[in-house]
Amino acid sequence: MTTDTLSTTFAALADPTRRAILARLTSGEASVTELAQPFEMTLPAVSKHLKVLERAGLIARGREAQWRPCRLKAGPLKDADDWLERYRRFWEESFDRLDEYLGEIQKREKKQGHNTSQEKEDKDG
Amino acid sequence: MTTDTLSTTFAALADPTRRAILARLTSGEASVTELAQPFEMTLPAVSKHLKVLERAGLIARGREAQWRPCRLKAGPLKDADDWLERYRRFWEESFDRLDEYLGEIQKREKKQGHNTSQEKEDKDG
Repeated sequence: MTTDTLSTTFAALADPTRRAILARLTSGEASVTELAQPFEMTLPAVSKHLKVLERAGLIARGREAQWRPCRLKAGPLKDADDWLERYRRFWEESFDRLDEYLGEIQKREKKQGHNTSQEKEDKDG
Repeated sequence: MTTDTLSTTFAALADPTRRAILARLTSGEASVTELAQPFEMTLPAVSKHLKVLERAGLIARGREAQWRPCRLKAGPLKDADDWLERYRRFWEESFDRLDEYLGEIQKREKKQGHNTSQEKEDKDG
């Protein structure tokens, strides 16, 4: 149903087997048989995943009838990354807030630790 | 069918309306009615999208029965970004190659330009 490029990309990535296939292709071209090996899957099942990836422009396939090696095409991943870019500040802000919070806890603990040794000194002195 | 977190995230992002809802939430909390406004959609249709986003952990909703404002939760987007991270070098490499190619063309054009003026000098001299 989804026709826009970004939706097609995200839909193609919404499957662990397809993501594993892309991960495998980061180390170079591979045939369908090679790609099927690590998965307990029939060749037609793998071919179906490859078709989804190909339609999404995430892989390209060689033209030779017998040996049609697949290779990674990173363009749509860049577009997905560009989309995520604008949300980066939100998780960075969250981490900043977490940092602040942890900083405060540490300061408080340090202060408490200081107080404790101070009390000890007071007692000892 | 998909149960892993990353697949759930990508599936939730694979829809332009859901991405538009997230974009709206970058400027602050909003009620379902407010979120529905820019779309020509019924409230139940928008609610359905919100449920997908909520299940994916991309939004959180207030507890008040009447006014249940939605807010963005960027955590899963960070995980998606982390996944994309390892592919970054592939599109950067492609751009490097394009840069190299353009550089070569410019060098060649410069050389041709130089040759032309050299020829002119030869003629004039």
